[in-house]
Amino acid sequence: MSKDKFTLGIDFGTESGRVVVIRVRDGVEFASAVIPYPDGVIDERLPSGPKLEHDWALQNPRDYILVVEKGVPKALKAAKVKADDVVGIGTDFTASSPMPTKRDGTPLCFVPQLRKHPHAWVKLWKHHAAQPEANRINEVGRERNEEFIRVYGGKYSSEWFFSKLLQVLDEAPEIYDATERFIEAADWIVWQLTGAEKRNTCTAGYKAMWVKGSGFPSKDFYRALDPRMENVIEEKIGTAFYPLGEKAGGLTAEWAHKTGLKEGTPVSIGNVDAHVAVPATTVTEVGSLVMIMGTSICHMLLGTGKQMVEGMCGTVEDGIVPGLWGYEAGQSAVGDIFAWFFEHGVPDYIHREARQRKVPFVAALEKRAAALRPGESGLVALDWWNGNRSILVDVDLSGVLLGMTLATRAEEIYRALIEATAFGTRTIVEAFESKGIAVKNLVACGGLPEKNRLLMQIYADVTGREIKLAQQLQTCSALGAAMHGAVAAGRAGGGYDSIFEAAKHMARVQKLTYKPRAEHHEVYNRLFKEYQALHDYFGRGGNDVMKRLKEMRRG
Amino acid sequence: MSKDKFTLGIDFGTESGRVVVIRVRDGVEFASAVIPYPDGVIDERLPSGPKLEHDWALQNPRDYILVVEKGVPKALKAAKVKADDVVGIGTDFTASSPMPTKRDGTPLCFVPQLRKHPHAWVKLWKHHAAQPEANRINEVGRERNEEFIRVYGGKYSSEWFFSKLLQVLDEAPEIYDATERFIEAADWIVWQLTGAEKRNTCTAGYKAMWVKGSGFPSKDFYRALDPRMENVIEEKIGTAFYPLGEKAGGLTAEWAHKTGLKEGTPVSIGNVDAHVAVPATTVTEVGSLVMIMGTSICHMLLGTGKQMVEGMCGTVEDGIVPGLWGYEAGQSAVGDIFAWFFEHGVPDYIHREARQRKVPFVAALEKRAAALRPGESGLVALDWWNGNRSILVDVDLSGVLLGMTLATRAEEIYRALIEATAFGTRTIVEAFESKGIAVKNLVACGGLPEKNRLLMQIYADVTGREIKLAQQLQTCSALGAAMHGAVAAGRAGGGYDSIFEAAKHMARVQKLTYKPRAEHHEVYNRLFKEYQALHDYFGRGGNDVMKRLKEMRRG
Repeated sequence: MSKDKFTLGIDFGTESGRVVVIRVRDGVEFASAVIPYPDGVIDERLPSGPKLEHDWALQNPRDYILVVEKGVPKALKAAKVKADDVVGIGTDFTASSPMPTKRDGTPLCFVPQLRKHPHAWVKLWKHHAAQPEANRINEVGRERNEEFIRVYGGKYSSEWFFSKLLQVLDEAPEIYDATERFIEAADWIVWQLTGAEKRNTCTAGYKAMWVKGSGFPSKDFYRALDPRMENVIEEKIGTAFYPLGEKAGGLTAEWAHKTGLKEGTPVSIGNVDAHVAVPATTVTEVGSLVMIMGTSICHMLLGTGKQMVEGMCGTVEDGIVPGLWGYEAGQSAVGDIFAWFFEHGVPDYIHREARQRKVPFVAALEKRAAALRPGESGLVALDWWNGNRSILVDVDLSGVLLGMTLATRAEEIYRALIEATAFGTRTIVEAFESKGIAVKNLVACGGLPEKNRLLMQIYADVTGREIKLAQQLQTCSALGAAMHGAVAAGRAGGGYDSIFEAAKHMARVQKLTYKPRAEHHEVYNRLFKEYQALHDYFGRGGNDVMKRLKEMRRG
Repeated sequence: MSKDKFTLGIDFGTESGRVVVIRVRDGVEFASAVIPYPDGVIDERLPSGPKLEHDWALQNPRDYILVVEKGVPKALKAAKVKADDVVGIGTDFTASSPMPTKRDGTPLCFVPQLRKHPHAWVKLWKHHAAQPEANRINEVGRERNEEFIRVYGGKYSSEWFFSKLLQVLDEAPEIYDATERFIEAADWIVWQLTGAEKRNTCTAGYKAMWVKGSGFPSKDFYRALDPRMENVIEEKIGTAFYPLGEKAGGLTAEWAHKTGLKEGTPVSIGNVDAHVAVPATTVTEVGSLVMIMGTSICHMLLGTGKQMVEGMCGTVEDGIVPGLWGYEAGQSAVGDIFAWFFEHGVPDYIHREARQRKVPFVAALEKRAAALRPGESGLVALDWWNGNRSILVDVDLSGVLLGMTLATRAEEIYRALIEATAFGTRTIVEAFESKGIAVKNLVACGGLPEKNRLLMQIYADVTGREIKLAQQLQTCSALGAAMHGAVAAGRAGGGYDSIFEAAKHMARVQKLTYKPRAEHHEVYNRLFKEYQALHDYFGRGGNDVMKRLKEMRRG
């Protein structure tokens, strides 16, 4: 095995980080080590004591360091791979998860006198407390007809970079002033490993209003948000952004010492977890929609040009692979809806049957649901339990279930929920196609496809498209990171010269595919029309009952 | 106690009959005996063997006889009341539950050579196999602009008298020919007890197209339905109908012998269970809506004139008490929806909590639901699990639940279902008031009010009206029958001269009443507007998705 070369992929998730050791020539995973974050998602009180307000979600950058320190040696050991044979390192991160640091990269939350200040910590992607700031950004952006409004399908999110920075300024100007750099964790970890602050174009493009060629909005825009923000780009961010797969630098001596890797091992520019998964599912061309399916779904698609597609999360040139436009869309709850149903909607007779058959209750439920034919339940649902991301971009929408009779059973409701999420994906597919961006087939990765054959078949039947599965469903992002590590190394360094080459050799799909069944597709075409009618009625102003109910709920 | 006089009320229900012994001077119930029907609801196979088709529901008249034979002696014994002190007997029945008999009243199903024929048996009220016949009746009725179409709020039901008779003719002309009398069980039992075939105006008016003053539709109408039916009224029904409370006759010697009662004891004209409950809840005047609340709700209201109110089950002069118009409306599923939810929608955490607290799970659920404020769930539902009776008269409508989020809990759904049924009642209340028929307060009887304080309070809050409860919630119909027995006896015979007098002395309400809370009513006014918008959108042709889904369900 001495001729084999390897790269490491380090995937920084929400609750833990994962290090994988991947063989360069064929993408085989030799080992994987998962390191949970000791502080996890910080949403109740800071590790230093103070209580957080509602909707906050922070992280401790120390946990990211720990993933590398512990995870790399552990994975290398498990893989029986030597440092000499590791030719590159790639990383990927949740986004947008930015943090304030000093000029040298020290997070403000590491500064003793600031560690009790919530705004000194990493704001995790799902920190939702910057909605007022997002509203202001959208208002000013629309008034000034800023390009980013179009890039983001009409709306800049409260989860993103500048909403979070503006919240710091609004609520803690002293922290804003102390912030010498405001930086995505994706870029910060690369800075730590290489000693070089080199930011990636992906988070810049998808989360921070940066557009290839024209850069950020003008100073006028930032001044209009807040006069103190006029020079934010020069002061705290910078204007240099580096393309995906480029080498950010070599591993520092200190990190080589800590991990057992060689000093100077090439480290690639930072990546985003959803985006980096695309080439890892073999997709580097137009026509295949990649679905990262878990609690939610991210839909990633490549296109040859820029199109304004309704309700996109972002449309970024070179945003996924070089030379193509990366489109990102999403459904804000999918696995989460099923988890909700498992918790709140499964009656006693399902649990009883599961005990009798000695299977998990979800298996009992799925078996019954799978025995139904499309349309048999007489139910149709709107999958808006967590609002609608694409294509309506409206967090105040909510779920609907319609068609219940006294004969309706739990497995029928479960199947209707699955179908509703499939209709949500089909709505996104049709939004792309309505703008001439082809979706010929689907490629899935993530946790959901592995667990749920019924769901995958329904998605194929509803969309009328074949679905392929990534070989490594659950470690797609880590594999994608490792592939970028190989590109950072380059062919001369034992890797590849492009992500296209890397994908050809390192990424694979499973033999198992889900093919649409014509007779089911025909029934689902009719059901989808019903979904669409309800979608438009409740989602496009026909009846704003959901918004009024949410207002009443707030009291 | 020798001065006390009593009447018997015999309430013939769906699964059993009940005999109550009531003191005439104050309505106090001295004893109650319930006799289950040995053959119950016959909906799978005849006691004589043959299998029934889907949607059939029959009964055996022998079971009615048994209720009197066994129940009367049992109740008298329990009450320690002597035959000499029983001054009258009243009965009430489900309706429309007609049967074919010979000229002497012998049910055709008692005739040995016919007993294996399904059409020879009693067609119970919930026999639903005569829908094609109901459709034909409505078609012909509308074409000919028949009065009954207006009386029944626009639609004659498959559950009613002539739909069932026409089904006999369609499917078994030989039974139709053998049918010398086609008669409601309500009238048949009175015929048995007194030897006189004297039919009541209530079933005639509410179920059989009969209108006080003008009688039945013309022969032309019946000929248009089927030429063989031209003379059906003279041949099988008759034109004499007797008002409620009138004495039908005295108990026969044979029945006196069987029951231990005195020969000649006055027996009143037959009654219908829902209608006879009205005076038993004290209501004999306009302004109080009586709700008989169980698996469904019957809404009974008195008015001073005839009005066409949308979606009524019937509007009959003297139909409930003499001198007033009796309006009947209804919700086709109420308790049934909750029973559905208890079976199909209650998750494990409710059952666990109930076990821990050692209470029934419904109590655990209700406690949580009661702790919510109106609007807090963010949910709204349409209560159409079994279609909509009043005011839309559409069996193909189905249930809706709207507003779910990942935080929605089972008790919130339960409360939303209760609220939806209350909105259904409010819709009926508003239909009455829109025609100038006042609904000042509500009076409830039946099984639901006793079990569910939360439900009753929500009905008060939603309708903005005080709700009184009948003293005897569950035996209201039997009490009403006994009151009519007292009227049949007359003051001279130890009873009363009118149902008004009887109600004054024999009927009572509880001290406990449910009063609307202004702040809750205000929130429910807003929620009701949302219900109305959905009601009209899905129920009045804005989106016929429910009908299309039911069609798809049928395959």
